[in-house]
Amino acid sequence: MLLHHLISHASLKGYEEMGEVPPTHPRYASLMARKLLTEAAAAGLLADSALIAHGRGEAFDYLLGERTCDAARNSIREIAGRLQGADWPIISVNGNAVALAADNLIRCAAAVPCDIEVNIYYRTPERMDALIGKLNERKEVLSHEPWPKGWDNNPNVEQWEQFPGDWQEKIRDVRILGGDPDGRIPGLEGPRAECCTEGILRSDVILVPLEDGDRCEALVAMGKTVCAIDLNPLSRTAKKATITIADELTRCLPLLLEDLFDATELPTEKWDNEQNLREVISEMLRVLDDF
Amino acid sequence: MLLHHLISHASLKGYEEMGEVPPTHPRYASLMARKLLTEAAAAGLLADSALIAHGRGEAFDYLLGERTCDAARNSIREIAGRLQGADWPIISVNGNAVALAADNLIRCAAAVPCDIEVNIYYRTPERMDALIGKLNERKEVLSHEPWPKGWDNNPNVEQWEQFPGDWQEKIRDVRILGGDPDGRIPGLEGPRAECCTEGILRSDVILVPLEDGDRCEALVAMGKTVCAIDLNPLSRTAKKATITIADELTRCLPLLLEDLFDATELPTEKWDNEQNLREVISEMLRVLDDF
Repeated sequence: MLLHHLISHASLKGYEEMGEVPPTHPRYASLMARKLLTEAAAAGLLADSALIAHGRGEAFDYLLGERTCDAARNSIREIAGRLQGADWPIISVNGNAVALAADNLIRCAAAVPCDIEVNIYYRTPERMDALIGKLNERKEVLSHEPWPKGWDNNPNVEQWEQFPGDWQEKIRDVRILGGDPDGRIPGLEGPRAECCTEGILRSDVILVPLEDGDRCEALVAMGKTVCAIDLNPLSRTAKKATITIADELTRCLPLLLEDLFDATELPTEKWDNEQNLREVISEMLRVLDDF
Repeated sequence: MLLHHLISHASLKGYEEMGEVPPTHPRYASLMARKLLTEAAAAGLLADSALIAHGRGEAFDYLLGERTCDAARNSIREIAGRLQGADWPIISVNGNAVALAADNLIRCAAAVPCDIEVNIYYRTPERMDALIGKLNERKEVLSHEPWPKGWDNNPNVEQWEQFPGDWQEKIRDVRILGGDPDGRIPGLEGPRAECCTEGILRSDVILVPLEDGDRCEALVAMGKTVCAIDLNPLSRTAKKATITIADELTRCLPLLLEDLFDATELPTEKWDNEQNLREVISEMLRVLDDF
């Protein structure tokens, strides 16, 4: 499978220049991700190191065969349960997360329900405004969709009662926080410590895609349940988080959304994240070994 | 070791913002590489996907423990021999190679001796001019250094006779080709096929750091000995090349220069590149497994 990906990857060069890749292409998702990020970089949404970080993720994703492994699928289910059982859930997003998956992050927030806080490591007013602006723009568009894909034909119709009210209203209710930080994460210095009292600061369960290791550690030290999405199972973020999804962001969010809709699985409360990461590494070893 | 790298990586955030990292820092080389690339990107030297490609390389380098493995060391030695035994050796460089290692690429060319051809996948006149300009600028600076590091205290003084003439003259003799392509690589379409008759086209041995898979394959199909430098042992470039150095560019070039100076090792002519790449993958398996 890996070989297949690498070969088909090469055949995409033509498409990249034409600026269009057919959605049926086996590596459509990966190429779209790359396109979204280079566009976001050009639009000033990202820090200098954002594209390099994305490339690191791509490499680890190759080692996972570019698919959601069983261990990651279990993490997603666990996180859905933790978010729904939380008193003050929050989704914290950075530039890459917004560039890659603004729509599904907003949908997940609506399904929990919770707010979204933009919280970036290299904070500048320009990037904060651009990211908050983009999320509000997408929220406006999404507030006109009747149901997100999957919701309207979900077999567990009886589960829907736990999501009372109208989907469009749920989308509108998601607040995009981060513009006026009034709190600080203890243990961090400078602008990277800034956060919102009504968002990250008071949260008990926080979903943080692509978080920095320092901040992940500081959030865990505050006693929060930190749910990270990080393709590198060796990273500090992956290892320090309470629950880690070692999967590609755009691939795992639809699964998270599905679980948030179903909510038949409750959190085990006995989560062994170290064991989960060992399973991810075993999967990588299998892929490398098969080569 | 890996763990150590990941932990020390986190502690660098402060340095990055200060714009200065002490050379004694364990991850100095990796951070300098990142700095050089983001600066080159800002200066318009790189294609959009260049930073993402570098990030992929960083991930594979983590899996190698950020050191030159034995298999890579053997490839370097073999390539030194092949370059010195060639009738028409050439070094082909792209944007990332120039951004990361212009000086040592010029020094290697002087030691072979051979010319350098700038040959980029997404060719634009602006990027070609910028890259050729940068190489000529560095050539001018280097043409004033008495000897490169290592040459003047090399224990194999008796070997020096095979490099007659003055080092500074050797640097000046390196031509920077690519500005006026008058040939084409068969089997490739569009601007990416363009090359110089006196450079890539007539070469029998070609050193190509960070080459694209399509072009690597086309060069091999021309009957050339293709010597690639690629951190991903699973990439098409790594697998199609005659000899692959699976090592980080700025780390392996000083070793290549050392071998070019020594030249006590002759090529085996029985090189098994597949076996070499298997050894690299075994090294990665060891690092992952140790985790």
